[in-house]
Amino acid sequence: MAIEHVKGMLCPAGPLRAYVEELLRAAGADGPSAAAVAQAVVDASSRGVDTHGVRLAPWYITAAAEGRVNRQPAVTFTEKAPAIGHVDADLGFGHLASYRAVEEGCRMAAATGIAAVTVARSSHHGATGCYTLEAARRGFAAIGMTHADSVVVPFGGVKAFFGTNPISFAVPAPGEEPVLLDMATSNIPFNRVMLRRATGTKLPPAVAVDRAGEVTADADRAVALLPLGGSDFGYKGAGLAAMIDVLCSAFTGMKHGATLAPGGNNAQPISIGHFFVILHPASFQLLELFDEAIAALLRDLRAQPARAGERVMAPGDPEKAEAAERARHGIPVDLVTWEALEEHARRYGCTVPDAVRN
Amino acid sequence: MAIEHVKGMLCPAGPLRAYVEELLRAAGADGPSAAAVAQAVVDASSRGVDTHGVRLAPWYITAAAEGRVNRQPAVTFTEKAPAIGHVDADLGFGHLASYRAVEEGCRMAAATGIAAVTVARSSHHGATGCYTLEAARRGFAAIGMTHADSVVVPFGGVKAFFGTNPISFAVPAPGEEPVLLDMATSNIPFNRVMLRRATGTKLPPAVAVDRAGEVTADADRAVALLPLGGSDFGYKGAGLAAMIDVLCSAFTGMKHGATLAPGGNNAQPISIGHFFVILHPASFQLLELFDEAIAALLRDLRAQPARAGERVMAPGDPEKAEAAERARHGIPVDLVTWEALEEHARRYGCTVPDAVRN
Repeated sequence: MAIEHVKGMLCPAGPLRAYVEELLRAAGADGPSAAAVAQAVVDASSRGVDTHGVRLAPWYITAAAEGRVNRQPAVTFTEKAPAIGHVDADLGFGHLASYRAVEEGCRMAAATGIAAVTVARSSHHGATGCYTLEAARRGFAAIGMTHADSVVVPFGGVKAFFGTNPISFAVPAPGEEPVLLDMATSNIPFNRVMLRRATGTKLPPAVAVDRAGEVTADADRAVALLPLGGSDFGYKGAGLAAMIDVLCSAFTGMKHGATLAPGGNNAQPISIGHFFVILHPASFQLLELFDEAIAALLRDLRAQPARAGERVMAPGDPEKAEAAERARHGIPVDLVTWEALEEHARRYGCTVPDAVRN
Repeated sequence: MAIEHVKGMLCPAGPLRAYVEELLRAAGADGPSAAAVAQAVVDASSRGVDTHGVRLAPWYITAAAEGRVNRQPAVTFTEKAPAIGHVDADLGFGHLASYRAVEEGCRMAAATGIAAVTVARSSHHGATGCYTLEAARRGFAAIGMTHADSVVVPFGGVKAFFGTNPISFAVPAPGEEPVLLDMATSNIPFNRVMLRRATGTKLPPAVAVDRAGEVTADADRAVALLPLGGSDFGYKGAGLAAMIDVLCSAFTGMKHGATLAPGGNNAQPISIGHFFVILHPASFQLLELFDEAIAALLRDLRAQPARAGERVMAPGDPEKAEAAERARHGIPVDLVTWEALEEHARRYGCTVPDAVRN
């Protein structure tokens, strides 16, 4: 979907990140947890990924305050094999554990060429792309995945089974920010259903089902999503969702997504898994040739003829354009989120940063 | 798509495989190449994957006879890092190089937990799932990918750029054949357009475009495919295609797909790359718990409520049912293919195996 225009307050990334971090600490999160969550949500918002950006901060702050997420987790790392690492998130924020996984994965992959790092006993980690992007900014390529509780109907089914189980891929690109793919394996995220309910608009055809499992474009009746590929080719999206569920459960030691308590935005902590693969380009090819190959692919793809009024883009290109815009003008935070943050700030006696209406 | 009923000759897998192998050797392929191609195409056909099965054998035999593929390749393997292997296919059949990649990858992953094996200077390798399945039959999980020449339009574009760039995932399952996902990142393969042209039937909506880049359901006017997700969500399928192109080109040392000469079924050898990741489950979890987790996911998924007349299945389930059927009754080979094989057999003085009309 195109990046939506968010109406609300505009705040520069630096102060916004410090603000979210301070609120999380005030709510009881330890320093590393608060820093990781603030980094991830502001990073997502700075790239236009508002569904997984600062919009989630009030939820995380409440989760910390109420102790639904371990605010002071003892995150541990184990090397299970020369190229396999494992992070125990200790039921803390998934953001902290995921940044740790990527950090350890880069270290291991520099020696072995490729490393897998599993994360167990974790929770929602926001946008999976935050972590693959972090690896790519360090010069590595990365594949990241997370499973989640049921909201996507399996192909041929009538009831949610898979999570939106996203997959992300990032690879360094010479002279620009990394190429970043970050996609749910459903057509749309459930957050878009919520948005359409709020705005009273119809859903696209073949993206959601009602309680009886029938396809519906009525956001109020939609209770679950179809996998990527919809009614005709949804076995592909569901197949990817199954792959991701396997890698995030059987390989991490967690249970599969459909056994998890429905998380939504308010439930008890769910003990989920994430799965990262880190690749060290220089172990595969001479870096100079590798960079040339990436540059050639991007140049040729972006030069493709397009439909009237459109442009052929590489994965992450729309977000790069938005990031430049937001670096100039600030990050837009919708008013509901802004006011929720202000309420937390009042409670904890924190200072609200300067911001202007957009 | 459902497995299509193939009308033609029924032949048991063993004699069919020996027959294809003999024809390939007669056409000049060396023993290992002939064995690998015959194994892959009969394996695909035995699971109902007829688009990538024995149907392709006459094409491979001709390619060997005309020397368009290196019939006697010096396939070499290099260990580039403790967990990175590289196979040079020497412009031979991609099947031989891909089986070799998986074999070496399993050996390496048993020591390191995960290994990536790149394949370079390769050619069409049939169904990517043949190789991930081979790894899973040995007790490993595997992800396999290949890029290819342009036939899929990038999102927003009007002209083919990506190949159908498939991704496959296989994982061992206790008490049954491995779970196998094997999917193109377009909605349908171009072979289905060809089939619909032959049968004079319409294409599904939003799967193909005409010469002007406009979506068409007219198989005769279709010249390229839309990525998985179609007109609305095709940025996801195209994003996956881009990821696969990067892994199969920049990481293997090959050029990206759109620079390759259009391969089709008849052109000169195309020097392409494949990318395999092999995972050693016992390096991640106790095998007993791993198996339990896979069994639980399969059991719960297969027990999901379904639409009237349908059944919720795990990836590869339709092919497992078909494989059981074909093991009993033989593998159906369409008459066009059967006759093409007979013509080769006459030319080389090979014996045609017993078969019956279905």
